[in-house]
Formats: sequence, structure tokens, C-alpha cells
Amino acid sequence: MSALIKTFDIDATDFSEVEHVMFGEIPMARAMQLRVRSFSDDNLVLAAPLAPNINDKGCAFGGSLVSALTLSGWGLIFLRLRALGIHCDIYVQDSQIRYLLPVWSDFDARAQLAEGESWDSFMAMLKTRGRARLCADCAVTLDDGKPACTLQARFVVIARR
Amino acid sequence: MSALIKTFDIDATDFSEVEHVMFGEIPMARAMQLRVRSFSDDNLVLAAPLAPNINDKGCAFGGSLVSALTLSGWGLIFLRLRALGIHCDIYVQDSQIRYLLPVWSDFDARAQLAEGESWDSFMAMLKTRGRARLCADCAVTLDDGKPACTLQARFVVIARR
Repeated sequence: MSALIKTFDIDATDFSEVEHVMFGEIPMARAMQLRVRSFSDDNLVLAAPLAPNINDKGCAFGGSLVSALTLSGWGLIFLRLRALGIHCDIYVQDSQIRYLLPVWSDFDARAQLAEGESWDSFMAMLKTRGRARLCADCAVTLDDGKPACTLQARFVVIARR
Repeated sequence: MSALIKTFDIDATDFSEVEHVMFGEIPMARAMQLRVRSFSDDNLVLAAPLAPNINDKGCAFGGSLVSALTLSGWGLIFLRLRALGIHCDIYVQDSQIRYLLPVWSDFDARAQLAEGESWDSFMAMLKTRGRARLCADCAVTLDDGKPACTLQARFVVIARR
């Protein structure tokens, strides 16, 4: 694994460079006007305005919700590996989505590791085999704390040599 | 249920009006440049160019694949009901997605009713209860016939009074 890559500070408050690297090559992420709200060891929060992500009913388009959620899980792994100076390709393998409540305002998509997953065992597997899987739990939550849309996604990560 | 709505001919070859009604109010569907390739009683095929739907690796962005697939299932129900002059709200409730192979070119998203589903029992339920559920199987298939991305989605349909 090469260390000759740009690393990101997980305590950063300005995410413009992170956003450029994460979304710059994905036209749909730019069209969705996705921003990074926060990033820590354990979770990544992406923010999306409602206007570009609206549907025919005036609430958030399901495709935008699932795109934001999938990118939050993908981004969590991407940024964690970048923070460690590790360069990998990250692919989503499968996911389950539940649309529970309509979203009538700007929304956040929050990703965290799924229960039972650990960075340590993931990193050990990645080091040994050059590839590893990791599941993330992602959700868009309303202001009153109720989940509006949840996504469980499994990612496969392949180290670049 | 009101019959005072625009109906669509399922044998049409010009889908520009259908596209306007389906996608006109969904900015992300417009950004994806989705088109209707074909529509019949049994399936709907949407076409998407690769360029606006590309990811950082140069293949189709997962969010675009799932958006196109979800809209193909949603659109199949929407157009079938419109062909019958029935006006409903159609919501996706949950879905399972498998990303099997990367998609390196323009792609089609094809939707059909899931096995065991029938329009007749769906319509009977909708008429009796004013709401009904319906599952669709949707897929993006490569030129060699291999499935690249599959989505099973459950929709809930609520009649407008």
C-alpha cells in the first residue's frame, strides 16, 4: 500500500478539500450539492439541501436519499483509510434500504460501522489479504430523532499496490 | 379514484410527454438524463447515459444505478395506472440491491413485476382498500446478458380521492 497519498485530518473543520476529493469526480454527488458536515473516527455525516433532491411530491427523492446514504458509508471508509495514508478502491457490494418517513427539509446522512464490525479486524484483514469487507449502518434522521430512511451496506475494499 | 387525468398509450413510441410527467419534477432524474426506452404491460425500460452518471473509477455511480432502478419500478406502476386512468401516489417502501459487476457504458434499467405478483390482485386490493402493495424486480444487465446490478423493491400505492 502506498503512503504517497494525501491524508486528511479527522479533526478538521474545513472539509472543502475532502469534498473535492470525494465528490469532484462524481457528477451526481455535485448535482446533489453534498457537503461533509462532520467526520470522526466513528462516523461521517453528509449534508444535502432539499431543493436539488426533491421529488414529485415535494419531499426528498428516494434516489437522493439512498445515494447520500451509500456515499456516507463509502466516505466513512474512504476518509478513515486516507487518514491512515492507505490508498484503496472501495466498492459497495449490496445494501438494504428502508424508507420509513418522508423527508420535507434539508437532510443529513450519517454513517457508522455496523454492530459487530471493528476497524482493527478490518485493517488486519486488509493488511494480510489485500482486500476486506466492512458493513456500515447509515441513516437519515428527522429533527425529532425518528429515522426516515435507513441503509445497511456492505463494502469491499481492495488495496492498491 | 378520478378519471380526469392524462392517460398514456402503452403502445406509444414517443415517450417525451411520459418523461416530462415522470421526471419533470425530479431534478436528479433530469440530471441523470433518464429517458424511457420502452413501456409495455409487463415492463418498463429506462435508459441512462454513462457520462452524467459516472463515479470516481470511471464506471456507473452506484447511486445512479439504484436511482434508475428504483425509478424503473416506480415508473412501471405509475405508467400502468396512468394507462388505466387511475391517479395514485406511489411510494417505495424498501429495497434490496446487489452490485454485481461494474457498468462501463450507457445502461438500461428494466423493471418487471416480481414473481408471484399480479396486476389483477393488486388492482382488486387497490379498489377495495384504496391502497395496495406491489413488488418489482429491476435490473441493469450488460450486453452479454449478465446482470450488473439488481434491485428488488416493494412499493405502496395509495389511491387519490
